[in-house]
Amino acid sequence: MLIELIPNLSYQAATELIERLEWMGFHVVRQGNDTLTLVSGVDKLVNMEGLATLPGIAKIQPLKSRFKLASRESKSADTQINIKNVTIGGGELFVIAGPCSIESEAQLLACATVAKNAGAQALRGGAYKPRTSPYEYQGMGVEGFKLLSKVANLHGLISVSEIMDTNQMEEALPYIDILQIGARNIQNYSLLKALGKIDKPILLKRGFATTYQELLMAAEYIMVGGNPNVILCERGIRTFETYTRNTLDLNAVPSLQEMTHLPVIVDPSHGTGVRSLVPIMARAAVAAGANGILVETHPHPDLSISDATQTISFASFTKMMHEIKAVHCLVKSFTN
Amino acid sequence: MLIELIPNLSYQAATELIERLEWMGFHVVRQGNDTLTLVSGVDKLVNMEGLATLPGIAKIQPLKSRFKLASRESKSADTQINIKNVTIGGGELFVIAGPCSIESEAQLLACATVAKNAGAQALRGGAYKPRTSPYEYQGMGVEGFKLLSKVANLHGLISVSEIMDTNQMEEALPYIDILQIGARNIQNYSLLKALGKIDKPILLKRGFATTYQELLMAAEYIMVGGNPNVILCERGIRTFETYTRNTLDLNAVPSLQEMTHLPVIVDPSHGTGVRSLVPIMARAAVAAGANGILVETHPHPDLSISDATQTISFASFTKMMHEIKAVHCLVKSFTN
Amino acid sequence: MLIELIPNLSYQAATELIERLEWMGFHVVRQGNDTLTLVSGVDKLVNMEGLATLPGIAKIQPLKSRFKLASRESKSADTQINIKNVTIGGGELFVIAGPCSIESEAQLLACATVAKNAGAQALRGGAYKPRTSPYEYQGMGVEGFKLLSKVANLHGLISVSEIMDTNQMEEALPYIDILQIGARNIQNYSLLKALGKIDKPILLKRGFATTYQELLMAAEYIMVGGNPNVILCERGIRTFETYTRNTLDLNAVPSLQEMTHLPVIVDPSHGTGVRSLVPIMARAAVAAGANGILVETHPHPDLSISDATQTISFASFTKMMHEIKAVHCLVKSFTN
Amino acid sequence: MLIELIPNLSYQAATELIERLEWMGFHVVRQGNDTLTLVSGVDKLVNMEGLATLPGIAKIQPLKSRFKLASRESKSADTQINIKNVTIGGGELFVIAGPCSIESEAQLLACATVAKNAGAQALRGGAYKPRTSPYEYQGMGVEGFKLLSKVANLHGLISVSEIMDTNQMEEALPYIDILQIGARNIQNYSLLKALGKIDKPILLKRGFATTYQELLMAAEYIMVGGNPNVILCERGIRTFETYTRNTLDLNAVPSLQEMTHLPVIVDPSHGTGVRSLVPIMARAAVAAGANGILVETHPHPDLSISDATQTISFASFTKMMHEIKAVHCLVKSFTN
Repeated sequence: MLIELIPNLSYQAATELIERLEWMGFHVVRQGNDTLTLVSGVDKLVNMEGLATLPGIAKIQPLKSRFKLASRESKSADTQINIKNVTIGGGELFVIAGPCSIESEAQLLACATVAKNAGAQALRGGAYKPRTSPYEYQGMGVEGFKLLSKVANLHGLISVSEIMDTNQMEEALPYIDILQIGARNIQNYSLLKALGKIDKPILLKRGFATTYQELLMAAEYIMVGGNPNVILCERGIRTFETYTRNTLDLNAVPSLQEMTHLPVIVDPSHGTGVRSLVPIMARAAVAAGANGILVETHPHPDLSISDATQTISFASFTKMMHEIKAVHCLVKSFTN
Repeated sequence: MLIELIPNLSYQAATELIERLEWMGFHVVRQGNDTLTLVSGVDKLVNMEGLATLPGIAKIQPLKSRFKLASRESKSADTQINIKNVTIGGGELFVIAGPCSIESEAQLLACATVAKNAGAQALRGGAYKPRTSPYEYQGMGVEGFKLLSKVANLHGLISVSEIMDTNQMEEALPYIDILQIGARNIQNYSLLKALGKIDKPILLKRGFATTYQELLMAAEYIMVGGNPNVILCERGIRTFETYTRNTLDLNAVPSLQEMTHLPVIVDPSHGTGVRSLVPIMARAAVAAGANGILVETHPHPDLSISDATQTISFASFTKMMHEIKAVHCLVKSFTN
Repeated sequence: MLIELIPNLSYQAATELIERLEWMGFHVVRQGNDTLTLVSGVDKLVNMEGLATLPGIAKIQPLKSRFKLASRESKSADTQINIKNVTIGGGELFVIAGPCSIESEAQLLACATVAKNAGAQALRGGAYKPRTSPYEYQGMGVEGFKLLSKVANLHGLISVSEIMDTNQMEEALPYIDILQIGARNIQNYSLLKALGKIDKPILLKRGFATTYQELLMAAEYIMVGGNPNVILCERGIRTFETYTRNTLDLNAVPSLQEMTHLPVIVDPSHGTGVRSLVPIMARAAVAAGANGILVETHPHPDLSISDATQTISFASFTKMMHEIKAVHCLVKSFTN
Repeated sequence: MLIELIPNLSYQAATELIERLEWMGFHVVRQGNDTLTLVSGVDKLVNMEGLATLPGIAKIQPLKSRFKLASRESKSADTQINIKNVTIGGGELFVIAGPCSIESEAQLLACATVAKNAGAQALRGGAYKPRTSPYEYQGMGVEGFKLLSKVANLHGLISVSEIMDTNQMEEALPYIDILQIGARNIQNYSLLKALGKIDKPILLKRGFATTYQELLMAAEYIMVGGNPNVILCERGIRTFETYTRNTLDLNAVPSLQEMTHLPVIVDPSHGTGVRSLVPIMARAAVAAGANGILVETHPHPDLSISDATQTISFASFTKMMHEIKAVHCLVKSFTN
């Protein structure tokens, strides 16, 4: 449920209230200055009348949504995540670009230069790769995190990289600004719980067959642990269509934005699996209201060690950036 | 295979060549002035060397694609369909608007006025409704075609309505400008063959579980019969996601435009099933390069006899039109 | 709603009651001697108290199910369809065997001999083939119906063949015992309505992406027209898995048997698309309680003009028959 | 590739050969006494002629399959896993039964007694539960493993329980005989790699949207680490159908048995999500050739703390056991 505090409640009074509620068995999350969200599935049991008499409470509102923290119902304003002078989820379009796998410093440097010049704010690259086959390239490991960090810092870019377990999480923490959870780990609850305990933003990619509800429940696992900074990413779902690698579900963008206050970005690279479609679907994603784009680019796409068929060239990336910035600007004008 | 005619071949010589080819067992389709497409699955059997010696032939090119007439391989230039001063598949954005079911002349008139003023070129309305249950409203029948025709003509709009069998096709022919084939009849081959024999454009909606290849094969059934004017329509596919009625597959737009020269439009009403998502996904569809939009609108959406939850108000429709025209204009600028 | 008649109501009294109900606007279907089912979506409007006072009515029961005639709620006993000394939907396992396409009398004769000897009751063969491409073999047409009828009669077998439109329906009526509606026409409502007016059993195959509810609604279209003899057929649905042609959904068998009183059979040929899997999945289907099996067999499977990869040899078919009869016998023993 | 050793190669000679191959960069797995499988994606690079001259090698056979260790190509005989006098993957039907969640010792004891009496060999129960929502019951933790072990041992049953990360794996090792990996962790490669290093059999459940290939690749991750004892489990996939919780894909049973030598079992509880369907689909699974069944049962199904709608009563379970044993016996007779 939501607890609205009385206006200008003193710090001490608020703290006492929270302690009292926690003593009663609630998990309490403070959202902004004047609202508490109480969770634990305890809604049914509590003596609501007694609760209302506690000092400091202006109003109590039950939450219907199954996701107590991620839902718009619990927090109507968009979540904005500030990191290195960039605000994700605000008016700005947030673009993450880079290779599928980190291959070398030269490769990263080339990507970073192009990304920065074209207006992207973040550099991605895989150090640990979740590959369907154990015989495929598994990534450079922690050395990849170090390289990515070094190159991103050099260009004032945010670093983004995927981790698949808590060991990799620990390795990544000193180097990586945003930790990515891939489609295959969307319901790896042990990992999600661990992510709730750290203070880095999490980029959470929808699974192959994950509903919007389940995606938000995965975010809830992170948020209830104490980390409110979750970025959702639509990256295509698995359907019967085989022309494309996945079916990019852009309905997810406005649907999720109705359901949640968290930022929603789109990955047209995995969402199509086809190089020629990537820039077009990036445009469509921004027109659908996406808060950002995650895209794979490489100095020599055909030589990319992984995901070559969906990796775009620097020329294509730069042209795409012009286009999505123009579409983003136009779409923003519609709502003002 | 494709037969390139020698330049400036006389009408008589071309006719003789076609007759000769037909006598040999080919099904011959003339595309433009200088190209013949020969089909019938006979490619494998023919004596190619003998064929090349026929008078009038400049060049012979085998076709690899399974869709001999619909593929880009057989005709690289976009098909443009001209009807009532509108060109579908050219530079113009083609918008079809109107109610799900035709309910009354007053309802149609209200829709037509708003559609015309906002810049739509076509008025749609269902006279025969394919309803999952036999106990749901089945439509007004031929009287609906007459009403739609009357109102569309009054406002200089193109009329579009669905037919489900050859009787309805015959009924519609005097009144309706573009015949729509719904998702449920996409592989009703008897009907598709009949549509190949008429000279009205066909609006062919993708089925719930139809691949791009199968959609093009359905178009091929119409085209091989002699009707080249097929408009493809993406309207969402069936997936595991239940928040939306269907999953709108916008990957289909650029994918189909790579595969075929036919126009591709998008129906965000069925593609989402959710009123609030319709205008947003219309924008995304245009950003993805759609040649047009098909959208359900109604003077009183909540009173709509069918599809109420996905029907938008006139105010929402008019705002949507401003937005998609702006996005279309911007997207066009990218390719010039 | 269901109307239970008073016991031993005279023929004349029952007829008068039905006429009175029809005059009131109901569509009345008599199920057995003592029950009427009234439909038309009028349930909400009728004066139930007034209705109950009509002479001849013992009891009135509203129907919650959306399928008024097909549901178990409206008729608890299994529908049994009697044709040529065979009862479909009773204790007997009903097997339909034969080639995908009718190719020649010799081919049919070979199939019929093997089918009869192995204990199948029906001979299938396609005269009109719904092919994805217009360039694939389209079938022998009405001559196929004649051949099938001749050969089936010779061996005392029931003939089963697919029709795709009302013309083909008319052509088939003199020759074919059970008319099959294929997956692609499951929501061809014009055709379903026409099938409601004839007195031959209909074999209704589930579509690629048709839910159980929709399948039953399609049956309802036929039944409300006056034809109660509908056999449902599970034949696989379209999923992301590509090793098999379709995903055979055997959950459908007990699920449908809970929902409806109609017989449910299974087509493991289309449900797998893989020859080696067909006899195994036939066994599984019978173990799941299927009332019958539809299977493609051919004297020379690899030479089959269509569906070769899923057509089984005569030896495999005969072995399969032994096995499914044994499984059927065992499964029957569980419920006694 | 496969290396066939020369007959009766001495232990020392074999060891020297393996060391030599490992020194060359191969990952070597010994399958039985006379075959080595070499993997690492190095197939392309190696000097095959040089390799053949190494002492002890009788024959070299390249492997076409992408799964070098799990494929039938690499090992044609069925893998049989021996544990506590039970052989999984041999002629015996292997049944795992028990509650979804471990709730108390009394609950487990009741389940164990019924399971043992009915002929099941293993007792399952969840100590850590992967729940979609963080507000749902998360399980009893390590105390659950201890209880399960105690009760299983008391009845001479094998214990089976799910683990979701390496910490839980460590906790489970002293207590649990077979570690289960749930659908959500099927592509948690960090966990799969850890499982390759232990010597307990792994029960690997197919994911919601995992293809047969991907399931085998997940098994390969475990096997290449050194643990050959993987049991595959079909438990339903996610489709558009909503009557059932999942669509049980029994095609997977014979398909996987063609592709791999690993045992394949079926979970009809998750595969249907509907109590009444569970025993019927268990029968169908056995008829399809499954090596075993995993089923949820509980002393009071409706009071089950999780998965209540798919948990069957003891009476239903006992009847099911009679039926599947009879079907299993019959099916075995077909292949002899």
